[in-house]
Amino acid sequence: MKIAVLGHGTVGSGVCEILLSRAREISSAAGKPVELGPVLDIREPENVPYSEKFIKDFSAVLSDPEIGIVAECIGGLEPAYSYIKSALECGKSAVTSNKELVAEKGAELLSIARAHNVNFLFEASVGGGIPLIRPLYSAMNAAGITEIAGILNGTTNYILTKMFRFGADYSEALSDAQRLGYAERDPSADVLGWDACRKIAILSSLVWGSTLKPSEIPTEGIDKITADDVKIAEQFGFSIKLLARAKFLENGKIFAKVSPAFVKTDSPLSTVSDVFNAVLVKAETTGDVLFYGKGAGKMPTASAVVADIIECAKSENNIADVFWEDGAQSVFAGSDSVSERYFIRTDSDISGLIPEAGKIAEHAYITPLLTAGEFSVLKEKINEHAKLLSNIPIYE
Amino acid sequence: MKIAVLGHGTVGSGVCEILLSRAREISSAAGKPVELGPVLDIREPENVPYSEKFIKDFSAVLSDPEIGIVAECIGGLEPAYSYIKSALECGKSAVTSNKELVAEKGAELLSIARAHNVNFLFEASVGGGIPLIRPLYSAMNAAGITEIAGILNGTTNYILTKMFRFGADYSEALSDAQRLGYAERDPSADVLGWDACRKIAILSSLVWGSTLKPSEIPTEGIDKITADDVKIAEQFGFSIKLLARAKFLENGKIFAKVSPAFVKTDSPLSTVSDVFNAVLVKAETTGDVLFYGKGAGKMPTASAVVADIIECAKSENNIADVFWEDGAQSVFAGSDSVSERYFIRTDSDISGLIPEAGKIAEHAYITPLLTAGEFSVLKEKINEHAKLLSNIPIYE
Repeated sequence: MKIAVLGHGTVGSGVCEILLSRAREISSAAGKPVELGPVLDIREPENVPYSEKFIKDFSAVLSDPEIGIVAECIGGLEPAYSYIKSALECGKSAVTSNKELVAEKGAELLSIARAHNVNFLFEASVGGGIPLIRPLYSAMNAAGITEIAGILNGTTNYILTKMFRFGADYSEALSDAQRLGYAERDPSADVLGWDACRKIAILSSLVWGSTLKPSEIPTEGIDKITADDVKIAEQFGFSIKLLARAKFLENGKIFAKVSPAFVKTDSPLSTVSDVFNAVLVKAETTGDVLFYGKGAGKMPTASAVVADIIECAKSENNIADVFWEDGAQSVFAGSDSVSERYFIRTDSDISGLIPEAGKIAEHAYITPLLTAGEFSVLKEKINEHAKLLSNIPIYE
Repeated sequence: MKIAVLGHGTVGSGVCEILLSRAREISSAAGKPVELGPVLDIREPENVPYSEKFIKDFSAVLSDPEIGIVAECIGGLEPAYSYIKSALECGKSAVTSNKELVAEKGAELLSIARAHNVNFLFEASVGGGIPLIRPLYSAMNAAGITEIAGILNGTTNYILTKMFRFGADYSEALSDAQRLGYAERDPSADVLGWDACRKIAILSSLVWGSTLKPSEIPTEGIDKITADDVKIAEQFGFSIKLLARAKFLENGKIFAKVSPAFVKTDSPLSTVSDVFNAVLVKAETTGDVLFYGKGAGKMPTASAVVADIIECAKSENNIADVFWEDGAQSVFAGSDSVSERYFIRTDSDISGLIPEAGKIAEHAYITPLLTAGEFSVLKEKINEHAKLLSNIPIYE
């Protein structure tokens, strides 16, 4: 069986390298010979020993009956979406590392795949090399998952780790991450939380079976976290992590949120450092389960794509139990649906104003359990008299 | 499809409860109706709403064509082994939580299962509710796993956590664990490392394809760890964990060992507390991956058994890619095959004797990288002059 690789960037070239260097192990795991087929890229191949495989015309992939699986590593919505859609319609399985595509078009592509009795898999789209998507839809698919909380973006976790270890400012830590290649020149997608938002949207859709749109999830980045927040957090036994969370509520709706959060230092999430990712899954029967590993990087991500290729090759005519639908109504419960405590820092003493808040440092408070609605009242109350310097939910 | 549950102890009763209470989710995940069939136990049922399902004669299970899967929750080698063997030979899939059975008879039972085109699965035998066995043989099966290090026994981890948090003695912490039901009245299998030894034997056999016998693995428990070791470890940025380790060497052999180990507090393994388990897997393509969760307990373990039941029900005529063989020669590399640093504590100053050792506290030393052979020389050298109070390898 031949594998077409679409896009020869970081991930795509990693997939080619693994398919070539581990051909024996991969074929053995798949139970049939698996080999690298054409590599589609609009650019000319540079210094690759398999340059004869490069093509520019996708229709050659569709028309080749030996190609059973298409590995999409282009990224972005188009042309990735059109390519995968037509490959599935031609009866070829597709695998992808493209979180934007899965978050936006997952339900539709899964439905097309099912109609054509082929697989559409996306282990690499969340958590890079961590086996995560598959355990969620296989080992844990009847465990009664109630909640997911993840550190799903390595760039922001690196920046926050730097700020904690060296007392660095946000901007210093960001520059450092950019210098090391952990952050892009335009870091918005990472630091503003959009990347983590797409990933939690995928996990929520997968686990609870109905599309949760990234655009519905309240998303806040780490760009407003200061060295003062970090100092106070550390002093009181917390770290600050960019958490992407989703929770199944009793009314059948989903609460989801991406934001920095205070995390107790004895939580397994608090010790996840540098570019590592981790996902904590709470389930009725298994209790807390945590998956940890490298959430990005060429080889970890490519390795997850290859794991999906093996799964597709092995499971011809045996479609994986991964599916969700676009519901008629949104499943998002609204940002007011869950009560939380908050860490608040202001520029003046508000202890008289909010007597129930616990003062933990000069002008820094932990508010008692509040609904989001009450919290907005609290904010107004504060803003009348004092400037709100930070407000960060506490993960409990 | 009916499921026969063998043994109605802690795990078996949990399996029955989940099969009854989550019947809808389980059948949906399996793609066919799955229901609880006969429950085999030599004891009379006590206060169970499904007492009409109890049977005492295993042959009734074998002769019932509606029973497609046997869930063995008896424990121990016999009669579990005979029951599973004859079920597989009758063309029924089998799942088990029995680590002793899998460690001792895994290769043989997997081979019988394959010959009869049925599955033999054992997710619950290592790491309780943590999805671990399946990610190892599916998502990571071509990742090039080079090393595994796990905290695989909740009882000993609870005891060590107590010793660290409260400066408790080993015997105090053990009594506390017994009082809470975390340790048995005869705690030998846990505290002497035998349980962890069986589990690392299973993981090693699974990952590298050849039986590693528990009896070959050098195994040391936590019963000699003192409050002084703990105090010194903590002071110098280590915790002490009972680690079960296995490493694939360049000569194709496996180094394995179960022992307490000094673990740096910034390692993700060091923050695994109380009865939680975690397994760190190092692989060529994915880098470090860690799986964390409840390694024991009724519902987590039963939930893993049920996940295997679903997998078997879903994959009729599609055998999972899990297999290892009894090699003609042992794969164990020998306990001298890997060099390690050690933490050594003696009753007197040996800095003159072993000048290269780093003194980290009064009469406590970290030895430089030593082979096991050199270390035995070192031990003799010490013992001539001073008593060796502790020697614990350092996990790096």
